[in-house]
Amino acid sequence: MTQQSYNVAVVGATGAVGEKMLETLDNKNFPIKELHLLSSKRSAGKEMEFKGETYVVQEATPESFEGIDIALFSAGGSVSKKLAPEAVKKGAVVVDNTSAYRMDPEVPLVVPEVNESDIQTHNGIIANPNCSTIQMVASLKPIQDEFGLSRVIVSTYQAVSGAGTEAVEELRTQSQAFLDGEDLHAELLPVSGDKHHYPIAFNALPQIDTFEDNDYTFEEMKMINETKKIMHDNEIKVSATCVRLPFFTSHAESVYVEVDKTDVTTDELKQVIGQADGVELEDDPANQVYPTPLASAGRSEVFVGRIRKDLDVENGYHLWVVSDNLLKGAAWNSVQIAESLIKNNWL
Amino acid sequence: MTQQSYNVAVVGATGAVGEKMLETLDNKNFPIKELHLLSSKRSAGKEMEFKGETYVVQEATPESFEGIDIALFSAGGSVSKKLAPEAVKKGAVVVDNTSAYRMDPEVPLVVPEVNESDIQTHNGIIANPNCSTIQMVASLKPIQDEFGLSRVIVSTYQAVSGAGTEAVEELRTQSQAFLDGEDLHAELLPVSGDKHHYPIAFNALPQIDTFEDNDYTFEEMKMINETKKIMHDNEIKVSATCVRLPFFTSHAESVYVEVDKTDVTTDELKQVIGQADGVELEDDPANQVYPTPLASAGRSEVFVGRIRKDLDVENGYHLWVVSDNLLKGAAWNSVQIAESLIKNNWL
Repeated sequence: MTQQSYNVAVVGATGAVGEKMLETLDNKNFPIKELHLLSSKRSAGKEMEFKGETYVVQEATPESFEGIDIALFSAGGSVSKKLAPEAVKKGAVVVDNTSAYRMDPEVPLVVPEVNESDIQTHNGIIANPNCSTIQMVASLKPIQDEFGLSRVIVSTYQAVSGAGTEAVEELRTQSQAFLDGEDLHAELLPVSGDKHHYPIAFNALPQIDTFEDNDYTFEEMKMINETKKIMHDNEIKVSATCVRLPFFTSHAESVYVEVDKTDVTTDELKQVIGQADGVELEDDPANQVYPTPLASAGRSEVFVGRIRKDLDVENGYHLWVVSDNLLKGAAWNSVQIAESLIKNNWL
Repeated sequence: MTQQSYNVAVVGATGAVGEKMLETLDNKNFPIKELHLLSSKRSAGKEMEFKGETYVVQEATPESFEGIDIALFSAGGSVSKKLAPEAVKKGAVVVDNTSAYRMDPEVPLVVPEVNESDIQTHNGIIANPNCSTIQMVASLKPIQDEFGLSRVIVSTYQAVSGAGTEAVEELRTQSQAFLDGEDLHAELLPVSGDKHHYPIAFNALPQIDTFEDNDYTFEEMKMINETKKIMHDNEIKVSATCVRLPFFTSHAESVYVEVDKTDVTTDELKQVIGQADGVELEDDPANQVYPTPLASAGRSEVFVGRIRKDLDVENGYHLWVVSDNLLKGAAWNSVQIAESLIKNNWL
């Protein structure tokens, strides 16, 4: 029996996440019949390799989705808002990696290790959560299941690749300028299109995405709202402080949690986290074992370490959560959703 | 009337903090009669400039403190343990910037903006707190005074200069190697003398100082214990996660606090923090105004921004606190203590 294969479109193929989508589809041997690489008009015509073949990137239009089974979108919210409904009309199922539909009550927001079954409620679009949310909820799910979860306070340590390939280039250029004793030119970060830009090289910027009226950034509100939606619990108290840092790959998170169950030992917590799908325990302080962004880059798992009990608050625990923001935080989670659509006949 | 002047010794003059001590004594026009620069045997003989004059660094011995009024120690805990009592015997008052005496109940641990009057209880030694503690308690003191403070959860973003000049060189060398596509050699960080070393360039290391038996690092326990001692309240719940990051100067801190008073507005909080001694409010999200490590380097103040109310917890607030770890975090706080000794006749 031949395995069924599918016509797949990648929208935003030339971007930082798009490239990782192709790598992941290749590495995971996704059953592709035809692959269509789509982009903005500006990037159309570019050639990209996939499994040894050369593909010419086409401009994404409503007609691009004719005959497509699965469309992986990662070209910005405005592109998704315009083209995802067109793709659905043509019969494709869209996995959208932008914030366009994440909080839409009609659209499931999915991290397969946490809420895979939500996928089957889709009406053509499934949203991929924000990168910093995905890795956090993957580490929180086993805690919620086993001990109950009432509170989360997270401070993030986020890589520049989350802001796209131009931000990666800005960090590289500024870092070299700094080492050469030259002036730093900031033209992009913290937020492309915002009023002011600040150097990221050898610095820390406590702003990711634009500010909301409540003085939280949109990134912080994404972590707060998406966590509640994915974990199916609007009562969990969640707060977030999101910080952009001068490294290229992987987000790290200092996460404080309070659980419902009393007298949970850190050994129990470690055991539960260590057994969770997609999560790897790296926690041995005596031997200086803990996750770091550099060591986690290029890997699909969510790594958790520094697990310890709060010294004052019964039921309070601290974790350090690290994952490749372009893989589990974006491309790999999207491809996982696509795999689940096929495996469960939910297309 | 001539202002009185004093014989001052700087122990560890050639280190990262020692150099900042000299800069600060100069900038603040500290009333120096004779300046003695002391170091380990290894660095003795080195020449250093102060106010246009050249000084030859001498090896620190018990005899070095003959006739010294004020000795500023910053040459590591073992040097302080050995020589601070000798300096006191010779009649000097020691301001010690190591962890050697900080938790000694006989030794005041002082941030002048917070607990200046503790200085007068000294028996010859006054301890300068850990850098990451100093800037945090400076920002918390006005909150404690005005609203009562019951809880603190901090995640730090700490510069490599806190680990000394060799760590600064390691970040510089590794950063250049990374940009050149070469392998990174880690020989020092996270902790000189610990078993394993990891690259800091374009990375984040969730270990500062060695691990204690409770799986917290010594740096984390310093923040927890010192905060309670300086703020004179063992009932404040404090927890800390300390992270070393790839920048040279200034520590940043994501601080969550709970206050006793109900219905405090963020405007009230901003007003109280903005009026506090040694603290500068930089908080205007609409105009992207918030403190960053690069912008705070070389300045003596503690900068506070991103002040906002927790979205779930009544009495919960979030702050972002940044300060130059070598100035307010070390040299400037030590010199402030010395100034207070003189001004208040507490020598």
